[in-house]
Amino acid sequence: MDSRPIGVFDSGLGGLTVVKSIKALLPSESIIYFGDTARVPYGNKSRELIKEYSSEITEFLVKKDSKMVVVACNTVSAMVLSTLKKNNSIPILGVIEPGVAEAISITNNKYIGVIGTIATVNSDAYNTALKALDSNIETISQACPLFVPLAEEGWLEGDVVNMVVAHYLSPLKEKNIDTLILGCTHYPLLKNAIANQFNKTTVLIDSADAVARAVQKQLSDFDLLNNKDEKGSLFCFVTDIPMHFETVGQQFLGSPLDSVQIVHDF
Amino acid sequence: MDSRPIGVFDSGLGGLTVVKSIKALLPSESIIYFGDTARVPYGNKSRELIKEYSSEITEFLVKKDSKMVVVACNTVSAMVLSTLKKNNSIPILGVIEPGVAEAISITNNKYIGVIGTIATVNSDAYNTALKALDSNIETISQACPLFVPLAEEGWLEGDVVNMVVAHYLSPLKEKNIDTLILGCTHYPLLKNAIANQFNKTTVLIDSADAVARAVQKQLSDFDLLNNKDEKGSLFCFVTDIPMHFETVGQQFLGSPLDSVQIVHDF
Repeated sequence: MDSRPIGVFDSGLGGLTVVKSIKALLPSESIIYFGDTARVPYGNKSRELIKEYSSEITEFLVKKDSKMVVVACNTVSAMVLSTLKKNNSIPILGVIEPGVAEAISITNNKYIGVIGTIATVNSDAYNTALKALDSNIETISQACPLFVPLAEEGWLEGDVVNMVVAHYLSPLKEKNIDTLILGCTHYPLLKNAIANQFNKTTVLIDSADAVARAVQKQLSDFDLLNNKDEKGSLFCFVTDIPMHFETVGQQFLGSPLDSVQIVHDF
Repeated sequence: MDSRPIGVFDSGLGGLTVVKSIKALLPSESIIYFGDTARVPYGNKSRELIKEYSSEITEFLVKKDSKMVVVACNTVSAMVLSTLKKNNSIPILGVIEPGVAEAISITNNKYIGVIGTIATVNSDAYNTALKALDSNIETISQACPLFVPLAEEGWLEGDVVNMVVAHYLSPLKEKNIDTLILGCTHYPLLKNAIANQFNKTTVLIDSADAVARAVQKQLSDFDLLNNKDEKGSLFCFVTDIPMHFETVGQQFLGSPLDSVQIVHDF
């Protein structure tokens, strides 16, 4: 029984999809969310800078008395998760391993596609994690740098979206993958357009639910669950209130963002 | 006769198009360029944050002994130029006024289009500057948030680009503009696709050359020109070395980026 909050962070607001899944599975847990909206996107920054930013944020969440930290950003999870784990004593969970485990349990033909930012794909983290669980897995990875701007612009369907999606996904279609990991928190917004590129047997994996289940397991393993029969709170810290903040935030969280505070020096 | 460098800055590398024009017109001048590559893009950040970042950078360039500062970023020029001018004693030049003056001198039917980031368009800075010079001007402004990601991805032509361009520009075509200001340093990369949307009499204004001429005039007015018959130097400071740094930089500058230093705390 531990009433301390779970810390969750992302480069921007996309990680709120993970918050949504955690709230649905573990309604008693309180959550502190940190979105680095002033410095988003991380997807094409250097590894060094991503390490610096995510270390600062983790430290902030630890100071706020988080009992565990969920890295709800594929780029950070892919590039610097081990550093964050090494430098902190509380449990740190990334988004890659839960999605990978789910993909392995689902694939039949062992051809798994992975899509993400340039940084995530270049890191080879998904490929390494998949092969570590099953060396017979064939992975086909593809960076889709225009998906985030399209999703943030609210272009989720139509000719342009379909052409961009078809362009990026054609190498994965050719390989006849039966499972596709959506390796970026923004991509579930384009789920329909992505699914239309494949036949109906191809399974799209949105890691958010898998991450929520992994959070539950870790909290349980470390005896950190909050079993109180009360609804947990959600408090958000952001480094800037960008344009369209409320609309975009609500799109990811599925409900309005109530308690938000801007932090500059942290 | 003043051999001190000209300071030029932008949120990223796009401002190197302005450097290219200044070097071509004023080859003896030395230039210090600052690209805030760690925090790019500025186009959808809040005004407060843009003010904070651009004040820091201007201070850095002043400390490096710049004789004038060129704000080679439309978003910063549109939102906080007057603050920067007020807080600094050396000449500060933005990209908006030179482009506006050129547009006014070119238009016949007085219908001028302006395209830029969300922040630039929302600021109404182009409209205000155009109307200040000629109250009979009709401006039609349009934010084109997907142009920067397309240009940075190297998608400069083809069906997707044409459809995105057509989508954003259709309100400007309807108004029969005869002059279009490309109000973002990235947009000249999409010049062909943009021009194809209009008939041949529509003039596209890329502010870089107009800015270079304004720099020459200001330096001359303040007796700050470097008349030495020697080629000036170019030194670049960036806050991160992002993916594709060299390719993107060369695309904007038109030649390789030789002297580059990363700065973290400045």
